[in-house]
Amino acid sequence: MAVNHTRFLADLHKLRTFGASGIGKGVVRPAYSEADIAARRWLAGRMSDAGLTPHFDPVGNLFGLAEGPSLLMGSHSDSQPEGGWLDGALGVIAALEIARSGDWPVSVVSFQDEEGRFGVTTGSAVWSGGLPLEKADDLIDGAGVSFGAARSSMADLSQDFIDPACFHGFIEMHIEQGPALDVAGERIGVVTDIVGIRDMVVTFEGQQNHAGTTPMHLRRDAFQALSLFNARLNERFQNVVTPQTVWTIGRVDLHPNASSIVPGRARFSMQWRDGDGDRLARMEEIIRTTAQQVAEEQGMMLEYGPMLGLEPVSMDMTLRNALETGAQAVAPDNWRPMPSGALHDATNVSRLMPVAMLFVPSINGISHDFAEDTAEDDLVTGLRVLDHAVRSLRSSA
Amino acid sequence: MAVNHTRFLADLHKLRTFGASGIGKGVVRPAYSEADIAARRWLAGRMSDAGLTPHFDPVGNLFGLAEGPSLLMGSHSDSQPEGGWLDGALGVIAALEIARSGDWPVSVVSFQDEEGRFGVTTGSAVWSGGLPLEKADDLIDGAGVSFGAARSSMADLSQDFIDPACFHGFIEMHIEQGPALDVAGERIGVVTDIVGIRDMVVTFEGQQNHAGTTPMHLRRDAFQALSLFNARLNERFQNVVTPQTVWTIGRVDLHPNASSIVPGRARFSMQWRDGDGDRLARMEEIIRTTAQQVAEEQGMMLEYGPMLGLEPVSMDMTLRNALETGAQAVAPDNWRPMPSGALHDATNVSRLMPVAMLFVPSINGISHDFAEDTAEDDLVTGLRVLDHAVRSLRSSA
Repeated sequence: MAVNHTRFLADLHKLRTFGASGIGKGVVRPAYSEADIAARRWLAGRMSDAGLTPHFDPVGNLFGLAEGPSLLMGSHSDSQPEGGWLDGALGVIAALEIARSGDWPVSVVSFQDEEGRFGVTTGSAVWSGGLPLEKADDLIDGAGVSFGAARSSMADLSQDFIDPACFHGFIEMHIEQGPALDVAGERIGVVTDIVGIRDMVVTFEGQQNHAGTTPMHLRRDAFQALSLFNARLNERFQNVVTPQTVWTIGRVDLHPNASSIVPGRARFSMQWRDGDGDRLARMEEIIRTTAQQVAEEQGMMLEYGPMLGLEPVSMDMTLRNALETGAQAVAPDNWRPMPSGALHDATNVSRLMPVAMLFVPSINGISHDFAEDTAEDDLVTGLRVLDHAVRSLRSSA
Repeated sequence: MAVNHTRFLADLHKLRTFGASGIGKGVVRPAYSEADIAARRWLAGRMSDAGLTPHFDPVGNLFGLAEGPSLLMGSHSDSQPEGGWLDGALGVIAALEIARSGDWPVSVVSFQDEEGRFGVTTGSAVWSGGLPLEKADDLIDGAGVSFGAARSSMADLSQDFIDPACFHGFIEMHIEQGPALDVAGERIGVVTDIVGIRDMVVTFEGQQNHAGTTPMHLRRDAFQALSLFNARLNERFQNVVTPQTVWTIGRVDLHPNASSIVPGRARFSMQWRDGDGDRLARMEEIIRTTAQQVAEEQGMMLEYGPMLGLEPVSMDMTLRNALETGAQAVAPDNWRPMPSGALHDATNVSRLMPVAMLFVPSINGISHDFAEDTAEDDLVTGLRVLDHAVRSLRSSA
């Protein structure tokens, strides 16, 4: 039985009616919202229709279980507060289509709160053991609601946690959420690894002063220290980074932040991402050395906040090879291996089993926005690559 | 009759009891506060005692008028919300001491709201015609109170505006509020000019993006544009500036200011000060050219807010010469001519008559802080220079 493109696209469009924003194809379907729960109830019905057994776990992750050991596929169906129709939803509906059209046991999952109303990829973090449930329950959203209270709104649906040993691997299809495929005119990205992240807050503290009476040579201006640090870092990173490495100073808070006062303090975020843990460590060393030198030269006190780290996750070679073979069959020489610069549920699931990921292009690289979209041809191409990969895994099993 | 150092210091210390902060010698005496009005009432009494006629104008500027044409001297007695005991107060009490100890007609003034609860040097700005009273009345302080409402709290005291033609010149003694004299170990600064200020808000607008999925070469990161602009500016200014020139990026607002998002917008303050109007204009040209180049290179939209400008004010040569002669007599080779990097009431008064200013050192350059202080020896040295200058002006009159 072949995958049914029409049915796949119809279900994908049906899903976006839950929480439709009325602006383009956008959706407003944050975790545990009425729209999110309604969408999960509908998904559970579609799983039943496909011969799968729907099962909500205690945090609202929805599984559609095949009988016996199976390959797990899926993503998430919650959205950003102002989200696109494909982020997460694509992976769930594609998994459903593969499960219902094939003759090899495939289970489907829609994880809860991937978009981080409460944390980061909360539902899969709890399921994978990365985040204890008691700790998760204390997480608070922007409006002061706890995760514990939010998940209790689905208590009537929930059963036990699913034993991960039921599954021998996990494949997640997702939109790229970046511009690489769209810019290159390519149809498919096979993920090589999900990059690791390092993130910390750095503070330069100099001397707040009158911007009229303090001569330049006597200033200890924290913004000037930050600017110098940034320039040197960009230069020194050139010897270490690859075209896939990224780094960002996204947040800057000056004190007192007034036009007539030499800034006494600059507190800023320093984030860097790469697929190679050693490279992340070398970058950290450069950051700390450079900040130290600038602090000494400019008469600054230097302070680091705690470093948040997520290790890079390599995709499983067997699953990845199946996806690459599928990509070459469906879109010959029109695909690429590539890292994922964004986090995904697969990062958590990799604690439990082999994982792999497939990307389709995002038009203009836009995501986390009502304007997020992908050409329907590309959605179908992604589905066909998944189908090809699952068939080749079956035949080699 | 000679100046009386003891009486001068006693009155200066008495004045700081109005709004004493209880922390060091600090004062809390913002314009129109109870403490400010009480201090002005006390000052009016001291003026009467000195044989001057106290006169409050409609905005609360307090004059102590000598009979007939006179030299005007003074400063302001309002303070910053957390201010020092000398900022303004020194100039008022020194003027009072000169007026009551000399035999040449000297009038005294304490301007209102120099510290800008409502604007910038509000009281002298209104008196000098730089700010129409109707406009001033609409100014709102940080708590939402209008200047009109605030000045009405002194309505029982107020009379007409004083005709500036009563005065043939204005001399203001003030603490330096910067470190130059203290660092050099000098006792007196004779002001050459009050620097001009240019101030504007500049905005680079690039493209907000995901900090994980957006490769470095495709980013249009507004913070990076700001950092590059700053570095180039520092370099290019070297060909134009003097050791007295200052420039400051004191306020930076990134949008959306989040660690995982490439900043799409950087809005920042650009302020520069110099005593030479031509240099201010050359600096503006460099700023605009550099911002334009950076915007083009980095794919930014560039936007300027309105440019606020205050022209440099040169001190009157006759008055300045009298102060320099006095400085050399009282503190031989231990004084310097210097620009004022801060604004003062003298900037406004220069619209009406010749002005000059005298500085004494600020310990560690600290001002606008409870810790502001000056050695009492230096306060007396300043008083003696003023006295010498006024006597020489009298004899050459």
